[in-house]
Amino acid sequence: MFDPQTLRFDASGLIPAIAQDAASGEVLMLAWMNAEAVARTLESGRVTYWSRSRQAFWVKGESSGHVQKLVEMRVDCDRDCLLVQVEQTGPACHTNRQSCFYTALRGGDEVEIMAPVAG
Amino acid sequence: MFDPQTLRFDASGLIPAIAQDAASGEVLMLAWMNAEAVARTLESGRVTYWSRSRQAFWVKGESSGHVQKLVEMRVDCDRDCLLVQVEQTGPACHTNRQSCFYTALRGGDEVEIMAPVAG
Repeated sequence: MFDPQTLRFDASGLIPAIAQDAASGEVLMLAWMNAEAVARTLESGRVTYWSRSRQAFWVKGESSGHVQKLVEMRVDCDRDCLLVQVEQTGPACHTNRQSCFYTALRGGDEVEIMAPVAG
Repeated sequence: MFDPQTLRFDASGLIPAIAQDAASGEVLMLAWMNAEAVARTLESGRVTYWSRSRQAFWVKGESSGHVQKLVEMRVDCDRDCLLVQVEQTGPACHTNRQSCFYTALRGGDEVEIMAPVAG
């Protein structure tokens, strides 16, 4: 049996979680989980982070509707990072872009490579 | 002009960097960079992390030969996470697996879904 407590958390009790679109492979965002958020995500199938700014559980999409349905959670070799493969409803980013990584560094400049989704 | 100092680093002066295979989209690993590692990666085209355990720059693959050639670096909306899309030579993981995320959580158990590369 997997026990979230066996993961390696940082001094704040958190572990980074990379969200990836399970179908396209696109990296959507990185957020943080504590042990309880990991357990809730696995139990509910709804990806749940720990909001460092609000210091509260953050069921992704709870207010926006842009939920992440868990397809598979993976642990890395050092047990200090998670990969969550998800079925993303709507844009993952709060700026309404599909991914939070919409700024590329090209030729020494910042280039916006993704527009906000309409609607 | 992009200035690495405009990124948001944590209390240790570090920012997480997700390495993704530029061709396959596979998420390979997560490691950390400081501002100088970001600058060196962009300048050299060889992905360079900051090793928290060794407290030293870590040119990925310097000893193993499993280098990461930078294809594109992206910054997230909060400027506190990087995505580096790479051309990976050999396995990315020190366990000789293609990716560090070789352990999946399935049915409450840990399942190894990737074998070490031969040789």
